[in-house]
Amino acid sequence: MTTRIRGVLAPVLTPFGADLKPDVGRFIEHSKWLVENNAGLAIFGTNSEAASLSVGERLELTDALLAAGVPAAKMMPGTGACSVTDAVTLTRHAVDNGVAGCLMLPPFFYKGVSDDGLFAYYSEVIERVGSDRLAVYLYHIPQMTYAPITLALIERLLKRYPTVIAGAKDSSGDWSNSKAMIDTFATQGFDVFPASESLLTQSQAIGGAGSISATVNVNPAGIHALYAGWNGPQAGELQAKADVIRKIFMTFPMIPAMKATVARFRDEESWVNVRPPLTRLDAATRQKLMEALDEAGFEMPGVHVVS
Amino acid sequence: MTTRIRGVLAPVLTPFGADLKPDVGRFIEHSKWLVENNAGLAIFGTNSEAASLSVGERLELTDALLAAGVPAAKMMPGTGACSVTDAVTLTRHAVDNGVAGCLMLPPFFYKGVSDDGLFAYYSEVIERVGSDRLAVYLYHIPQMTYAPITLALIERLLKRYPTVIAGAKDSSGDWSNSKAMIDTFATQGFDVFPASESLLTQSQAIGGAGSISATVNVNPAGIHALYAGWNGPQAGELQAKADVIRKIFMTFPMIPAMKATVARFRDEESWVNVRPPLTRLDAATRQKLMEALDEAGFEMPGVHVVS
Repeated sequence: MTTRIRGVLAPVLTPFGADLKPDVGRFIEHSKWLVENNAGLAIFGTNSEAASLSVGERLELTDALLAAGVPAAKMMPGTGACSVTDAVTLTRHAVDNGVAGCLMLPPFFYKGVSDDGLFAYYSEVIERVGSDRLAVYLYHIPQMTYAPITLALIERLLKRYPTVIAGAKDSSGDWSNSKAMIDTFATQGFDVFPASESLLTQSQAIGGAGSISATVNVNPAGIHALYAGWNGPQAGELQAKADVIRKIFMTFPMIPAMKATVARFRDEESWVNVRPPLTRLDAATRQKLMEALDEAGFEMPGVHVVS
Repeated sequence: MTTRIRGVLAPVLTPFGADLKPDVGRFIEHSKWLVENNAGLAIFGTNSEAASLSVGERLELTDALLAAGVPAAKMMPGTGACSVTDAVTLTRHAVDNGVAGCLMLPPFFYKGVSDDGLFAYYSEVIERVGSDRLAVYLYHIPQMTYAPITLALIERLLKRYPTVIAGAKDSSGDWSNSKAMIDTFATQGFDVFPASESLLTQSQAIGGAGSISATVNVNPAGIHALYAGWNGPQAGELQAKADVIRKIFMTFPMIPAMKATVARFRDEESWVNVRPPLTRLDAATRQKLMEALDEAGFEMPGVHVVS
């Protein structure tokens, strides 16, 4: 197993050109800026529009990041897929390149699937990849997958693959679920990342591993400061400041809103592009978002200064 | 545009070996048996476990069928995908090979997507494929995709791509929806296939195009007889007989139940294999299914006689 990655990670936004092809250069720039701001890279998450990318595109983007000198140890790529074949391809490539971990969605086409079926899926991928360097983070996002990662499933997987099952991202937004995951499994070395930084103070206090949150894409420094200082004298203030930003983005369609924000602060209009079925913000909504951000004094410091 | 395909089509079951790789030989055998029983081949549908296959596996299976002499004119492959890139790859390959049509799922990861987003997805695929031989069948299966193909969306797509948008498969099981699709669009040459043969008499009476139904995999002759005789003297009896079989399978997990049935009647145990997240029937459930089929006098005539 690789060294455990903890702290603050961004499900890295994927920029597209006018032809909707991934914009590799901007992807590298954004990733480097995130790393410089102490964020890990959960490339190919929900907010990365990973489902809208082909397997080949995901492999190429990963290779491009590595070639650009972004350390694999900072990466937790999403490698789950509806097809075991695809999940194995993605996971093997990630492991071979030495990533810190793989964030693995369950298959999400069929609904009402059983824990037995999900156990079989994860087992199949783990056994086919067959590497002791593999660290799997289970991705609980039932509002998209309708395939929850239950406590019973985690227990079975941990028992069967104790050195491979490394943790979970809990995107349910349900604190009682994040708490139950941490309370039940953290002592076994199971690292739980609630998806919202709004839960960071609470989750760190009981043994959480950090946060993999959409808004790390636009507020990495603020969220990392909260992670670093959650039990310090400024904890309340840091949490409140992060919450203000989070709440603004939560009131807009998250992915297009973040892309519009990066477009503005980088002054690169093509950042607004999204792949269908997502759609860009319309002009009026975009205006409202920018006003809300201005009112909150929001900035993306250093976003133009990329090494 | 190709000649319109109508009538009875099977979402062709995909057999897997013990290693869970597609069993190409059995796939060809099963497809040929279906064609001999007057069924078209909606390969890579929901009941084909298409979502559990990689793009590469789908292309290879299509090529294998064609190489085995199965006519492209009998095929309506599923070519929809979460990623436009994948949908274009699959659709282009299908069109280049002269298939009758492409059954196209909307992207199904993101939830709560807009009609604008779905319109953009279909537009993007249609324009990138850019072929006047392309016939798109929209796949309405909201219980899996949570992305319904609304009447408003059909209207927009038909208006923009009148020669490409050829019809829909309605897997909602909601007769009022199938009826609305037919009533609103059939006169514009929009072919609606309700997914259950239980609706066949009703839907043919108002201008339906046939049925693309799971159970065609096990009862092609019975369902085709109903399609051919829906307004003849034996219509009631044919509908009732088909319904008996349908109802049995509806009370079991459909895909594993059909696979267990094919395994029995072909006497080929490996047919029971499914890919995760699906699971096989357990022994007791399988026994119950076989008893129910025996009680109904169910058979798969000619299933061993494959040319």
